Amino acid sequence: MSEKGSPVNVACVQMKPLFGQVQKNVAATKQWIEQAKHRGADIVVLPELCNTGYVFESRSEAFSLAEEIPNGPTVQAWSRLAETNNVYIIAGIAEKQGESLYNSAVLIGPSGYIGTYRKNHLWYEETLFFEPGDLGFPVFQMEIGKIGMLICYDMWFPEAFRIYALHGVDLVGIPTNWVPMPSQPEGQAVMAVHLAMTNAHSNGMFVACADRVGEERGQPFIGSSLIVDPYGWPAAGPAGGDSEELVLARCNLSEARTGKNKSSLNHILRDRRPEIYKL
Amino acid sequence: MSEKGSPVNVACVQMKPLFGQVQKNVAATKQWIEQAKHRGADIVVLPELCNTGYVFESRSEAFSLAEEIPNGPTVQAWSRLAETNNVYIIAGIAEKQGESLYNSAVLIGPSGYIGTYRKNHLWYEETLFFEPGDLGFPVFQMEIGKIGMLICYDMWFPEAFRIYALHGVDLVGIPTNWVPMPSQPEGQAVMAVHLAMTNAHSNGMFVACADRVGEERGQPFIGSSLIVDPYGWPAAGPAGGDSEELVLARCNLSEARTGKNKSSLNHILRDRRPEIYKL
Repeated sequence: MSEKGSPVNVACVQMKPLFGQVQKNVAATKQWIEQAKHRGADIVVLPELCNTGYVFESRSEAFSLAEEIPNGPTVQAWSRLAETNNVYIIAGIAEKQGESLYNSAVLIGPSGYIGTYRKNHLWYEETLFFEPGDLGFPVFQMEIGKIGMLICYDMWFPEAFRIYALHGVDLVGIPTNWVPMPSQPEGQAVMAVHLAMTNAHSNGMFVACADRVGEERGQPFIGSSLIVDPYGWPAAGPAGGDSEELVLARCNLSEARTGKNKSSLNHILRDRRPEIYKL
Repeated sequence: MSEKGSPVNVACVQMKPLFGQVQKNVAATKQWIEQAKHRGADIVVLPELCNTGYVFESRSEAFSLAEEIPNGPTVQAWSRLAETNNVYIIAGIAEKQGESLYNSAVLIGPSGYIGTYRKNHLWYEETLFFEPGDLGFPVFQMEIGKIGMLICYDMWFPEAFRIYALHGVDLVGIPTNWVPMPSQPEGQAVMAVHLAMTNAHSNGMFVACADRVGEERGQPFIGSSLIVDPYGWPAAGPAGGDSEELVLARCNLSEARTGKNKSSLNHILRDRRPEIYKL
């Protein structure tokens, strides 16, 4: 793989947030971001809801832990870290706007806060506390390439990846909190790993998933963070199922442009036939 | 898994067609169909272009081997086999209609020919000889359940699976001729296996892929035929990469209806947000 193009080093942080301990969690992300930078990272992806933890028991509990974007203390802290370390950060956060709660991801760069994605497809009890995203699928054109974000259960909707691909996104950063799926056969990779691989492949783009580990109020999480190339193969990971670790890959984002040619006569987006995709 | 509902036995035939030897190939499908029936099959899926072989060198060569549907000898022979063995057959065939060529799949039942699917997304040199499908994504409601068909490269388009799922299809039968993908890492399942699994999972339906094996005019094929359940896990297969074999699974097609509930608060189709899937 040639270095001609847009090589960037992508890091996914697989960590274990502590429920409700926002200051401790943000301090932990600081250490992970510094370690990722030390190992050459240009972009650091952190898990879903990594400042608060995941298993809220009530709306009021979620509300009390959620923060405003970008003025809340967590995004302010991450902005300082992005500036100090000269990195981009994609991170999951419980967002409060007025009286509404969103399961959100922020994109922050060396010059500060850039934008927000609000999870469009809510999983299980998230539906009790959070509002579904109302920002669509925002695309961020940056110096290093074109970036999109999704969160966890969004990956079950190929429409989301396709929309980003059609808007020219090179890398989808995915904060996630994957839970075990029912009846997984022995020896199978987790379904989310298959989803990351096929959606990267079918759209010819990079996908970087940062999952959490550990158990919270009886709910286990499954790790397996990974970075997938536009051909659909893991560039790094999947990580272990219960270890805190960093997953790093050098990604030439230009391959998200060349990688859409699946043969000399096939281009995965130009081969689409939207005129027959009617219901 | 309860037998309440719609259990059917699905068989995928992984075989090696001989290029251009239509009579021999149809005779081979007869043996495979009889063997599948002997082992309890209700539906038998055969590979793409299984009566002619795959690697055509010219349009005239393809034209001379293609047949009309349903009046050509191959579909007539398969219709007799479906009647005699009281099975449904899904099989790939080179179709000629007037001066047009299509890479097609036919659905045939115990009472004869039912319908045709024409490959909508053509791979590589197929684009030189065949016309893209002009029949959309036809859905066949049958006594045993609701059936759809795709062919090989169609699987790279999640739109196709989604359309079938939204029309209530329980099982997608896929004649295929998978070729090796570039740069597959050692030890990885073939990408098509990942695609079959995730599209079955993300749509909560059965997917049955019958691939060919062997090499033809220098082009290798990769086997790995499999049947996937609505949770995304292989119910049978993947088969070997170069052996002729039968892949069989008992599939309760009703699970394509219950399997869309991914949690007690999530239904994979009702969770879609078509209002934000705009470009």
